[in-house]
Amino acid sequence: MKITALILAGGKGERFWPRSRKKNPKQFLSLTGDGRTMIQQTVERILPIVEPGDIFVATNQNYRALVREQLPELPEENIICEPVGRNTAPGIGLGAIHIRKKYEDAIMLVLPSDHQIKYKGMFLNVLRDAIAVAEEGANLVTLGITPTAPETGYGYIKFNPDRTVGSAFAVDRFVEKPDSAKAKEYIESEEYLWNSGMFVWKASTILHSIEEHLPEIYRGLTRIESAIGTEDEESIMSGVFENLPSESIDYGVLEKEDDIFVLPGTFGWDDVGSWLSVERMRPLNEAGNTVSGNALTVDVKNCIIEGEKKLIAAVGLRDLVIVDTEDAILICSKDSTGNIRKIVENLKICNREEYL
Amino acid sequence: MKITALILAGGKGERFWPRSRKKNPKQFLSLTGDGRTMIQQTVERILPIVEPGDIFVATNQNYRALVREQLPELPEENIICEPVGRNTAPGIGLGAIHIRKKYEDAIMLVLPSDHQIKYKGMFLNVLRDAIAVAEEGANLVTLGITPTAPETGYGYIKFNPDRTVGSAFAVDRFVEKPDSAKAKEYIESEEYLWNSGMFVWKASTILHSIEEHLPEIYRGLTRIESAIGTEDEESIMSGVFENLPSESIDYGVLEKEDDIFVLPGTFGWDDVGSWLSVERMRPLNEAGNTVSGNALTVDVKNCIIEGEKKLIAAVGLRDLVIVDTEDAILICSKDSTGNIRKIVENLKICNREEYL
Repeated sequence: MKITALILAGGKGERFWPRSRKKNPKQFLSLTGDGRTMIQQTVERILPIVEPGDIFVATNQNYRALVREQLPELPEENIICEPVGRNTAPGIGLGAIHIRKKYEDAIMLVLPSDHQIKYKGMFLNVLRDAIAVAEEGANLVTLGITPTAPETGYGYIKFNPDRTVGSAFAVDRFVEKPDSAKAKEYIESEEYLWNSGMFVWKASTILHSIEEHLPEIYRGLTRIESAIGTEDEESIMSGVFENLPSESIDYGVLEKEDDIFVLPGTFGWDDVGSWLSVERMRPLNEAGNTVSGNALTVDVKNCIIEGEKKLIAAVGLRDLVIVDTEDAILICSKDSTGNIRKIVENLKICNREEYL
Repeated sequence: MKITALILAGGKGERFWPRSRKKNPKQFLSLTGDGRTMIQQTVERILPIVEPGDIFVATNQNYRALVREQLPELPEENIICEPVGRNTAPGIGLGAIHIRKKYEDAIMLVLPSDHQIKYKGMFLNVLRDAIAVAEEGANLVTLGITPTAPETGYGYIKFNPDRTVGSAFAVDRFVEKPDSAKAKEYIESEEYLWNSGMFVWKASTILHSIEEHLPEIYRGLTRIESAIGTEDEESIMSGVFENLPSESIDYGVLEKEDDIFVLPGTFGWDDVGSWLSVERMRPLNEAGNTVSGNALTVDVKNCIIEGEKKLIAAVGLRDLVIVDTEDAILICSKDSTGNIRKIVENLKICNREEYL
C-alpha cells in the first residue's frame, strides 16, 4: 500500500520564546545547531520510506510561505492550511481526507514537526514495523517511547504485554501527565510507555474512527473534501473548519477504540518541549554549559546560553537559560521554564505584538 | 582664603562595565537615574562654596572633550589632562601646581568625581568645617565617613579622640581594606572611620608635603609648572608626567605626616563602587528589584535590572545584576560583581576593543 506522511506543523512553540515567534515558530527553527530546521529534519528522517511527493504538511495558513521555503521538494497542494488551530483531531482528519482524495487510501505516518530523534535507523525500523501492523485490518498504531526516567511532562500509554500484533502491543489506556509518584509507579510496573504523539494507520481506518466517535467533525471534513480542487475550496474550508470543535486525536478517538496498538521505541526521542532540551541535543563543555553565539563566561556552571550578535557576559551564574534575539533576551532559571508562557501571555495582554 | 576644588576624574570605572566604557567611563554616566552625570552632580554639590571658575578637573587627556561637554561652565584651562594615570599623588600634585600658578595659594577641596552624597547640606557643613581646619597652619584634612556596617571594601582611618582641631580629630593611621573580623573590631572600637578619598588642604601645604615625602614627583611637578602657559607645556607635560612613579596620596604622603586630621561625616556617602550601589541609589519595588528600561519580570526577586531598548524577559531569578547596553549585556550574580573585571581583562587579552 502507498505510504504517505502527514507532518503536523501548526504549533506556536511559545515555550521557545523569544527565539520562537508567531511569525517563525519553533518547528521552522534550527535548535540543534546543525543549520537544518526541525521540520526539515522531520522530512529528511522519513525519506527512505516516503517519497517527497507523498508527504503532506498540516499547518496554519500563516505558515504556508515558511513551509514552501523550507520544504521546496513538497508539492504545493500537499501543504494543508488550517485557518485556525482546532487541536489534532480536525487537523489529522483534514490530512486524511486530502490523502483519501488523492490516493483513495494509503498508509499515513502522522508525525509532529518539532521532535528530535537521535537514532534515525532505529526510528525507521520502528516505522516499518508500525506500517506492517497498520496494514493488517483496521489497526491504529501509536509509537510509544520506552521511558528512561519518571518524567511528569509526558502522557503515558499502558500496554497489554499479552496481546500483540507483530511487535506491537495492544493499548490498555492513555493516561495524562502524571504526578511524580504516579510516574515512578508507571516506570516500575514496566507496562507503561511515553506517548510520543506519532501515529501510523490507514487513512480509511482513522477516518472511519473519526466518523464513529466524532461525527460532527467527520461531517465537516466531508464537506471540505467535496470542495477540494474546486474554486470554493478556500471559502468552504475556512467556513467549515472554524466551526469544528477543538479535540485531540488521543482523547477524542484513540481512547475509545479497541484495535489500537503501541510499538515501543528506543530511538533517542526528545519532544524538544522546553529550552532544557537544548542541553540534551548539544555538546556540553566541561563546566556543564552549552554555549553558542557571542558569549564570555566567568564562573558559570550548568547554564544554557544561546547568544546572537550581542556580547553576553555571564559572571557567577548557575542553572540559567539565557536566550538572546535581536529585540528580546530571556533570562530564566532552569526550574522556571514553565513560566516562560507567562511572559508571552503578558506580552499578549499588553498588545506588544512586536515581541510575539 | 580663596577656595578652589580639584575633581579627580581619571578613573576607568571598569567595575561598571558594560555601561562604563573606556570612551565614556562611570564618572560621565548618570547612574542615579536623574539624568545628571556623576561628575555634574559632584560640581553642583559644591557650587554654594566654590565658584565654577575655581573648579579644576584632573582627568585623562582622552576625556577632555567629555569634561568640556558636561561642564561647560568651567574655564578650559581648568581641565588638567594627564597623559597617563599615575595614581592620586602625581594627579593631586599636578592640580596643586596649577592652583599655585593661578592663585599663589588657595584652599583645595579634592573630590572624586564618582561618589554619591545623599545629604548635600550636611556635606557642605562638613566641608566648611574642614576648610576652617585646613586654613590653620599646615593642617591636612581628610573626610572620614562614620561607618554604618563592617565593610571590607573600604580603607579605614583610625583617629585619636583626644587630639582635636575644631571638629576634626588627629589621624593615628590609615589602614587598608580589612578582612571581615578586623572590620568588626574597627566598628566596635568606635575609633575608626571609612576613608572617603576626599581631602581639604592648602595647595601650599600639600605641595610642601609632596616635596618632603615624594621629592622625585615634586621635581617633576615643578618642571611642568614652569612650562604652564608656554608653547612647550604639552610636550614637557607628557615627557615628564609619564616618567613619574605611580603613588597614592594616602600612602605616599598622608601616612607620613603628623598634622593630618579627619572630619567624621554622616552625609549619606556612597562610593558607588559596584553595580550593587545602584540598589542604594534607586527606589526598590515590592519584590526588592530595581528595574529600569524595557523589562518584564515573572517571579524575580532582589535583582537589579538596567535595561535599554531590548526587551529583557526575566523569569524565576534571584539576586542577579542584569545590565543591557547596545552591544553587550552583563548577567552577574550579586556576590560576583568583583569578577566583572575578569570579563574586562578577557576582552583586553582578546583585543576586543569594541567592547572596552
